[in-house]
Amino acid sequence: MSLKVSQPPPHGGRLVNAVVDREEGAKMAAGCPAYDIRPTIDPRTGVPIRNAYREVMSIAYGFFSPLDGFMTRNEVESVMRDRRLLSGWLFPFPIIFDVDGEELRRLGVKEGDRLLLRLKGRPFAIIDVEEVWRFDPRDVADRTFGTPERNPEAVRRRFDEKHPGWLIYRSMTGTAVGGRVHVINEPRLKEPYDRFWYPPSASRLEFGRRGWRTVIAHQTRNVPHTGHEHLMKEAAFLGDIEPCNGILVNAIIGAKRLGDFVDEAILEGHEAINKFGYIRPERHLVTMTLWDMRYGNPLESLLHGIIRQNMGCTHHMFGRDHAAVGDYYDPYATQTLWSKGIPSYGLPAPPYDVDRGLKIRPVNIQEFWYCPVCGEIAYSESCGHRDRAERFSGSFVRGLIAEGIEPPPMIFRPEVYQVIVKWWRKFNYPFVNKRYLEAKEAELEVELDPMEVTTR
Amino acid sequence: MSLKVSQPPPHGGRLVNAVVDREEGAKMAAGCPAYDIRPTIDPRTGVPIRNAYREVMSIAYGFFSPLDGFMTRNEVESVMRDRRLLSGWLFPFPIIFDVDGEELRRLGVKEGDRLLLRLKGRPFAIIDVEEVWRFDPRDVADRTFGTPERNPEAVRRRFDEKHPGWLIYRSMTGTAVGGRVHVINEPRLKEPYDRFWYPPSASRLEFGRRGWRTVIAHQTRNVPHTGHEHLMKEAAFLGDIEPCNGILVNAIIGAKRLGDFVDEAILEGHEAINKFGYIRPERHLVTMTLWDMRYGNPLESLLHGIIRQNMGCTHHMFGRDHAAVGDYYDPYATQTLWSKGIPSYGLPAPPYDVDRGLKIRPVNIQEFWYCPVCGEIAYSESCGHRDRAERFSGSFVRGLIAEGIEPPPMIFRPEVYQVIVKWWRKFNYPFVNKRYLEAKEAELEVELDPMEVTTR
Repeated sequence: MSLKVSQPPPHGGRLVNAVVDREEGAKMAAGCPAYDIRPTIDPRTGVPIRNAYREVMSIAYGFFSPLDGFMTRNEVESVMRDRRLLSGWLFPFPIIFDVDGEELRRLGVKEGDRLLLRLKGRPFAIIDVEEVWRFDPRDVADRTFGTPERNPEAVRRRFDEKHPGWLIYRSMTGTAVGGRVHVINEPRLKEPYDRFWYPPSASRLEFGRRGWRTVIAHQTRNVPHTGHEHLMKEAAFLGDIEPCNGILVNAIIGAKRLGDFVDEAILEGHEAINKFGYIRPERHLVTMTLWDMRYGNPLESLLHGIIRQNMGCTHHMFGRDHAAVGDYYDPYATQTLWSKGIPSYGLPAPPYDVDRGLKIRPVNIQEFWYCPVCGEIAYSESCGHRDRAERFSGSFVRGLIAEGIEPPPMIFRPEVYQVIVKWWRKFNYPFVNKRYLEAKEAELEVELDPMEVTTR
Repeated sequence: MSLKVSQPPPHGGRLVNAVVDREEGAKMAAGCPAYDIRPTIDPRTGVPIRNAYREVMSIAYGFFSPLDGFMTRNEVESVMRDRRLLSGWLFPFPIIFDVDGEELRRLGVKEGDRLLLRLKGRPFAIIDVEEVWRFDPRDVADRTFGTPERNPEAVRRRFDEKHPGWLIYRSMTGTAVGGRVHVINEPRLKEPYDRFWYPPSASRLEFGRRGWRTVIAHQTRNVPHTGHEHLMKEAAFLGDIEPCNGILVNAIIGAKRLGDFVDEAILEGHEAINKFGYIRPERHLVTMTLWDMRYGNPLESLLHGIIRQNMGCTHHMFGRDHAAVGDYYDPYATQTLWSKGIPSYGLPAPPYDVDRGLKIRPVNIQEFWYCPVCGEIAYSESCGHRDRAERFSGSFVRGLIAEGIEPPPMIFRPEVYQVIVKWWRKFNYPFVNKRYLEAKEAELEVELDPMEVTTR
């Protein structure tokens, strides 16, 4: 029995690379009608809650391999029913390019055409129009996430407008374009995102350069406290012969909610963990994926597994309430998925144990707390002083900071706090507020150079 | 791909159980000549360095399965050459019952006979004499451990009298009896050993009762400091879907060296770790194996693998300088064995990757230290403050205690220190001294009831 684990193949067997150079791109787009990508807006507040450009990026750079375009009606139906693409490979969410139907008609776009997609007023990508189709946004929202009746293993209560992922689908226009995409004008990631941009082909190379045979992924949308740090360090013990060689932090960067930490602080906060040696930089790499999180708990964990397998990770850590918001899901739904499967989501066995499933291996983790008896950050399954446990969470830490209190070093590294202070000064507030939201949506995470394309 | 790991079969496929009840035993021993088991003595100092009764116990209770008796000449040759029993199963050390040849002749013992073995003056076991053979103790000692020339992957310098394992073989009589053994008068383990006595059939049952599917073994001959505690807690993260369910501490109990911690404190010190909740008692079980350690580093680790696989463990943690003394071995020889094998010891691949090898999985671990920057016990592969590391070892802790200083709680739990103090009071000294050695060899770890056996 060989116990060696090594870099898994991409999901579906091949990394998608749909980024073409500008010259080639200009040719491909020549003569096409142009359409401006615009954000999905929360109809109640007018706040942007998603920008499909992030999906174009994640598709074209291979994060979502083998998905190479926006889904057609049949593929969306297949995903909602079986969590599988038409090719049979596991995939959790409908990836829908919803558009302004009026404008599409005005442009005279029909199936078989090619559409130039503009971002920030500049040529960005193209989509080959395989299908223009209509859908009921509420119905797609409901069937994407499920209901307590249909998904009793995972769903605790009916989804509604307070759930940001459901709201994204619910707020779509009802007209969609399905088909392959290509980025034709490669965007430059803005500072500080540029340092953290490792698309799957680049992360795989970087793992090779670093000599990492085993790599465990850490999902984040938080500035790390010492509980996160210990989760990373201790889950990395998982491995076969020796602890995992590398720890990959992969932050989900996209639409924010009021009160969140700002994305810049999340990335630089994790970077501070290795920069100041709390985890050796040789073992720790901070990266990002562009995606407006759907907060789908087990479904989201499946997407995370796909993204990080594509990036080359061998293992993925999953905690309680993974990528969750509110109490829509059972807190352990993700761990249920990864230890026995969720049949009502089309997974009678864990994702690594079904045909055309994933190769990445799960590491299910419980809780970390500060234990005053042990005098250290302790793991719930090891520490015998549960009644003395001092629990702290991202919300608790945000509460302290909001009160102007620097969290104690036991639960928050001072160098990480300095990162928060740095961005607090820049944005005049330590968390996401309305002004940050507006600026973020106007500027996004990228810059695009001007590009000449002769459009129709 | 199912990732589930489960309890391995015993080494060789079947647990040896060669303990018979007293009635049956009395019949088996009736009419046999009797021979008193006596310790192996260091000829330079007169100090006992081994007692073969411990080997009888470990064989008869299945710790050494599939070995069911003392080895014959051919089997010893096979083990020294290929590290394999005549049946082909891996085994690292010659297990030799050396006897007083004069007395054997006086008793008229010949091949095919049965010999009653007495311990502390009472009937204890029998051996079916398959072979009486002679050997050169120095030659067996040399070929057991190897030399820098023959074993360049592992051995750094020639073994000599300062190596306690080499000395055991070197001090043997040169006359040996090979053949199957049975314990006929089951000894009672004395307090506190009785609490820690879980022969393989019992440990397997206990794992089942506790619902442990995965169990990681920890080798010890030390009272645990916080480095050991973290090694256990963090190596236990190893597993497949979730961290190992159980941590098995298995102390090697046998001949001691001056300055060692006393065996009673080693066992109760580890017990204090779970009793006072530093590791939840539900996850942590302290046990013992009777064996006069040979300090054979990679070879010893192979025996540890066999013992703990027989006990039902799925994983084994191996640190630097595993079961080592002095600088005879490369400090990483054990990890070399378990990650790529040591061809000159007959292992061209790791023990889990050869025919008739082991099923237990290794977890190779580097160093723990106290890091004043992280403010915690840190792992060398995670912590980036190597230049600030405050290393501490069992010797350092013993040094403090010898000076009458209670080690700081950061590196030694106060409740564990209290265990040392308890036995210090009892023996008037915190460590093994000459008086302890004499008392231990006179009393051993067991009591035997009187038993009527008609001997020749």
